[in-house]
Amino acid sequence: MNYEQVISDTVKTNNSTIVLLVMDGVGDIRNKEFGNRTPLEYAHTPNLDKLARESSLGRMYPVLPGITPGSGPGHTSLFGYDPFDVQIGRGVLEAVGIGFNLEWGDVAARCNFSSMDENGLVTDRRAGRIPTEETERLCEKLRTIKEIDGVEIIIEPGKGHRFVTVFRSKDKKLGSSINDVDPLAEGKAPREAKGEDENSQFLANVINKFMKKGYELIKDDHPANGFLMRGIASRPELTSMRDKYLLESAAIASYPMYKGISSLLGMTLLPTGDTIESLFNTYVQSKAKYDFFFIHIKGTDQAGEDGDFLDKVRHIEEVDKYLPILLQNKPDVLAITADHSSPCPMRSHSWHPVPLLIHSRFCGTDDAKYFHENCCNKGGLGFFESKYLMGLLLANAKRLDKFGA
Amino acid sequence: MNYEQVISDTVKTNNSTIVLLVMDGVGDIRNKEFGNRTPLEYAHTPNLDKLARESSLGRMYPVLPGITPGSGPGHTSLFGYDPFDVQIGRGVLEAVGIGFNLEWGDVAARCNFSSMDENGLVTDRRAGRIPTEETERLCEKLRTIKEIDGVEIIIEPGKGHRFVTVFRSKDKKLGSSINDVDPLAEGKAPREAKGEDENSQFLANVINKFMKKGYELIKDDHPANGFLMRGIASRPELTSMRDKYLLESAAIASYPMYKGISSLLGMTLLPTGDTIESLFNTYVQSKAKYDFFFIHIKGTDQAGEDGDFLDKVRHIEEVDKYLPILLQNKPDVLAITADHSSPCPMRSHSWHPVPLLIHSRFCGTDDAKYFHENCCNKGGLGFFESKYLMGLLLANAKRLDKFGA
Repeated sequence: MNYEQVISDTVKTNNSTIVLLVMDGVGDIRNKEFGNRTPLEYAHTPNLDKLARESSLGRMYPVLPGITPGSGPGHTSLFGYDPFDVQIGRGVLEAVGIGFNLEWGDVAARCNFSSMDENGLVTDRRAGRIPTEETERLCEKLRTIKEIDGVEIIIEPGKGHRFVTVFRSKDKKLGSSINDVDPLAEGKAPREAKGEDENSQFLANVINKFMKKGYELIKDDHPANGFLMRGIASRPELTSMRDKYLLESAAIASYPMYKGISSLLGMTLLPTGDTIESLFNTYVQSKAKYDFFFIHIKGTDQAGEDGDFLDKVRHIEEVDKYLPILLQNKPDVLAITADHSSPCPMRSHSWHPVPLLIHSRFCGTDDAKYFHENCCNKGGLGFFESKYLMGLLLANAKRLDKFGA
Repeated sequence: MNYEQVISDTVKTNNSTIVLLVMDGVGDIRNKEFGNRTPLEYAHTPNLDKLARESSLGRMYPVLPGITPGSGPGHTSLFGYDPFDVQIGRGVLEAVGIGFNLEWGDVAARCNFSSMDENGLVTDRRAGRIPTEETERLCEKLRTIKEIDGVEIIIEPGKGHRFVTVFRSKDKKLGSSINDVDPLAEGKAPREAKGEDENSQFLANVINKFMKKGYELIKDDHPANGFLMRGIASRPELTSMRDKYLLESAAIASYPMYKGISSLLGMTLLPTGDTIESLFNTYVQSKAKYDFFFIHIKGTDQAGEDGDFLDKVRHIEEVDKYLPILLQNKPDVLAITADHSSPCPMRSHSWHPVPLLIHSRFCGTDDAKYFHENCCNKGGLGFFESKYLMGLLLANAKRLDKFGA
């Protein structure tokens, strides 16, 4: 018996609605230039403040102390998939992120067109950031390679110089323990693909042949006379949110990566706009149709990665401004948190625990009166790992039976 | 190496006394009708308040975030038995709770007399709640079935319409992966017992024969002309508190369930009265004879399950009133906590973390000055899982050596 089994054994359905609002990277550290406050402390957020007084607060370690998660583990943890058991490769994220419908057994790679010199060395890993239309044209050329050694090759253009290659085989299991072909630096040659086991070596051979044939096809298309591959990965076999929690789940996100993760977990992707207002309105329009909504806000993370304190504050205040849209169509359980912290002074993801707010009829309240890091330290939820959040949300929705007599 | 092994490797004896006072279900959430306070916040508790200032506080997740434990996992966790590894079936709890001395290999079932119609359908699952004396008389009738297929059948009457059946075999291992025979609803027929494996199917056959023979014996005893069985379970093989912690342990509890759990862990059950005063006086009388005392207070949970805020307050104030009995005969370590929360607004067990107070010479103190949920959020013990409590109590009793050089 373990935690996931107990959840699975005790979960039940009812008519409740759960909303998980993820302010990507919102967790931060205090900044001396701004009154020694964090962006959440600095922002003017009357709606969040009121909600916090009627909620229970706490903090979550996205993985475990000291570990800085990428967007993959950051999000899968939030949905209750143990980040040590479940790993989603970057190629897979990229593929599902552009709306490609990966099948079981598919292997996907992130690719980008690149500029090469006469010696086969990379002179620009992004081929001068060629426009999407040019990438589409070049992908059409590569698509003439339909199959190598019985492995189907599927090419899908992305934004700018990016594209995705998917390898599919009907009869053979394709391995994906394969190094990046991308040397990740200019002045170097692409690396040879090598597999760590037999099934991976088989695909590595296919990849090497594909690189050779593809380079031949676009050799005169300078600046995009080459391409590079990385993040080669198989589609992970994940239990869907429906099977795991009996939740009909919908994702409201405008960025490919988060749509991608959601679709791997079997969530329905709801069409939505780019603004926070449109994300929230999409929830209101679909509230009756789903049990669980994942709403993803990207701006807070982007501001953190740019080191732009005031831009982060602006995104937080924007969430606060439109929060009444959610509250006027209140779900039974509303959680607000982040997948990881992205402190402005660090300009990157970090290991710092994220702030968490849970609001429900039975959440209980505490003396933690504001939704910011320091108040959350004193909340009634304490500190725990993000992978336990879904259990708490289900409990607050009264969707879990008692464990044991 | 894991936690339990470290405790086992480092534990030692000394002359210290540890008291674990469990106020069953005392954890709660704030209630707007009572000044937005929890019962612990609302109650007038001068003795607990003084003790809290000389103690270290914290909160415990009984199992893990979101999981609502039954009394079994709630208590086994408190005693340091991992609730995912150790599960005590309801039949076993019921049997040991009425003082029956289960042997290894025994399988026990909760039974109740029921009323049946001419078509064999249940018309009243509790047979009009017949009095204990009638249950005793009917049990005598059933006791004429001494054995089926070599399996000894032992019948023990409980309170009201309840009794326990124990199945015992000298030569055959009895399985207990067997469904409830009780249909758990009126208007339905008892279900046929079915086993999930060979040893369980063997006992399931015995149970089906026992049901048939038993029904024949009491067919004219309306309203109790039938009986139902559920919670069929084997006695779990648990390391005793003596073997696990080198503690001579005693339980001071007046409710069968908690006596039952204690006896499964090898604790001595001390005869006691029903009042908090008598529970505490029992400790004083036996203080010299044991290392560890588990004192169980039921009223707080009962009030929570009844949704009776002021009754919960009354039980808390009663504990406070008699607390000086414990303090005048102070143990080296005194812990006060709960096995789970039972918030009055929910009228049931819940997942909310429980408040914890530990008082000892070396406990340290913190700024958490009152023994209630919200103060405990800020205490020096933080939030942790109940299964680690025994380690803390042993440490405070200086009964644990250093781990590692």
